[in-house]
Amino acid sequence: MKYLLCNILGIFVFDDLGNVIDSKLFTGIHEYEARQHYLEQFRKKHAAAEITHDNPLLKIFLAHFKDSQYFPSFYAANLELTKQQIKNSVSKDQLLIQAANTSQDIEKILNQLVKRLREWYELYNPETSKAIANHEKFVQQIIKKSKQELLGQQGLSENDSMGAALEKDELHAIMNLAHHAQELYAYQKSIEEYIKSVMEELCPNLLAVAGSSIGSKLLQHAGSLERLAILPASTIQILGAEKALFRHLTRKAKMPKYGVIFQHPLIAKVKHEDRGKAARALADKLSIAVKVDRFKGKQIAEQLLHELQERFGQWK
Amino acid sequence: MKYLLCNILGIFVFDDLGNVIDSKLFTGIHEYEARQHYLEQFRKKHAAAEITHDNPLLKIFLAHFKDSQYFPSFYAANLELTKQQIKNSVSKDQLLIQAANTSQDIEKILNQLVKRLREWYELYNPETSKAIANHEKFVQQIIKKSKQELLGQQGLSENDSMGAALEKDELHAIMNLAHHAQELYAYQKSIEEYIKSVMEELCPNLLAVAGSSIGSKLLQHAGSLERLAILPASTIQILGAEKALFRHLTRKAKMPKYGVIFQHPLIAKVKHEDRGKAARALADKLSIAVKVDRFKGKQIAEQLLHELQERFGQWK
Repeated sequence: MKYLLCNILGIFVFDDLGNVIDSKLFTGIHEYEARQHYLEQFRKKHAAAEITHDNPLLKIFLAHFKDSQYFPSFYAANLELTKQQIKNSVSKDQLLIQAANTSQDIEKILNQLVKRLREWYELYNPETSKAIANHEKFVQQIIKKSKQELLGQQGLSENDSMGAALEKDELHAIMNLAHHAQELYAYQKSIEEYIKSVMEELCPNLLAVAGSSIGSKLLQHAGSLERLAILPASTIQILGAEKALFRHLTRKAKMPKYGVIFQHPLIAKVKHEDRGKAARALADKLSIAVKVDRFKGKQIAEQLLHELQERFGQWK
Repeated sequence: MKYLLCNILGIFVFDDLGNVIDSKLFTGIHEYEARQHYLEQFRKKHAAAEITHDNPLLKIFLAHFKDSQYFPSFYAANLELTKQQIKNSVSKDQLLIQAANTSQDIEKILNQLVKRLREWYELYNPETSKAIANHEKFVQQIIKKSKQELLGQQGLSENDSMGAALEKDELHAIMNLAHHAQELYAYQKSIEEYIKSVMEELCPNLLAVAGSSIGSKLLQHAGSLERLAILPASTIQILGAEKALFRHLTRKAKMPKYGVIFQHPLIAKVKHEDRGKAARALADKLSIAVKVDRFKGKQIAEQLLHELQERFGQWK
């Protein structure tokens, strides 16, 4: 009886006693990857049984590779293979998730920075800071216009202002911060564009049904497109509401109705008592969309959206 | 008997019955600010007693201003005065404290951003990220050099890397983040320069003894130079260790030996058992330095530093 064993080092034919009677050593990973081709040749040459994992002889054959002849190259080749697999495992969705994480970080950072900027700038011109509630608009305005112009918009003069007159270098330090905030706003927009473009390629149906913000958050929570695709719709419905789910499971709080999908315009649009229904329906459609995306199916988002709109009415 | 009362509206001479027998109305805040000049004139003209706050007649005289003839302008003039005072209260140390706050924010933000950058970049080139522990140097290097060059420094080729080959726009999104981090590093340096230049003007002795980082932190904790100057040395010693002090006071934990001054090179230099002593001595000198700065005294920092060095040895 002859046995055929293939591993990363090569193809080996053993006899009953564990001696190698024929072999082919691979010269590199590319030969290992094309192993089926070589196995065919060996199968033709030898009437050998393939060794399965439950075969008691396997142990004897494997002991063979502990030999100093094989072991170092066995180790090196396996390491090489693992590296290769890690390299190949980097996929579009991982990049997408990193970009989405970054976008969320920048959002928080901008909030913090502009709060700080306001505190500082208010020593100079408190009236304008109070008048413009929106952070981004505030930054734009103070960069574009002088204190005089800004106060003029509110019908005030510089004498009316409670802010101090600052020296040039004092104001310069403040405006520098404003410029950095402005650049980060621009960067955030570019990264949102990038996320959208990756999603268009990777998961167009998810993008169309969920939008880029909710879609990328769902991917973040699931960890990858593959994992999101195997999640049941009921899980997609509450992704991002893990804390509330935990409260439900441990302390009999109410079951959460939605997680990140809460921000979807459909949920905002329906009446309060219909939100649970809408969330369930939306999660259903998302689940379908992401499964189709995972297997590179057709563009079905229009139909999914249409079905949702039939039931709950137009929302955009 | 005649009484003289001066407030923001003007100068008023009352008789015993609360009737105005002479007055001068101020036309604006500038006249109020020059009130001593006008008061002189009135004192010459009338042999009037100045009204003190405990005089029972004051109430009667003040009722006079509730009259619709005076009240609206009384209110407006007071508001104007308050605004003016707020405007004038903005001082160098407030600007300094804002700048120091910003610098600390940016430091935290950079830490967060570069961690995120590393996570993202490691999909592309994990080896370089592991090799360069310093965040700032890491950012500089990946901007300056290609993946090939970076791996070359470690004696690796691109094939050895576990990172994936990325498309141009994928890499672009990552490098954009790196550029923003680099700009924030540059901004932080410029803000540190600014802090230093303000301190040179505002509190040169504190700057020389404490350095700009510890000095500005002490100001942050105290809230202003004025308040820092009236703190006892023992408080300066533990500024920034409020939590530890609270533990000491409520839960019999050890008394903290130092707050923000812990980062001073003197404390780092002395033996562990001498740190308490060194902290006390340093706080003493800081307390002197800041008091001299508060009252615009001479440059005495050299002497203070010399005395510390006499006792504990050279540290820089």
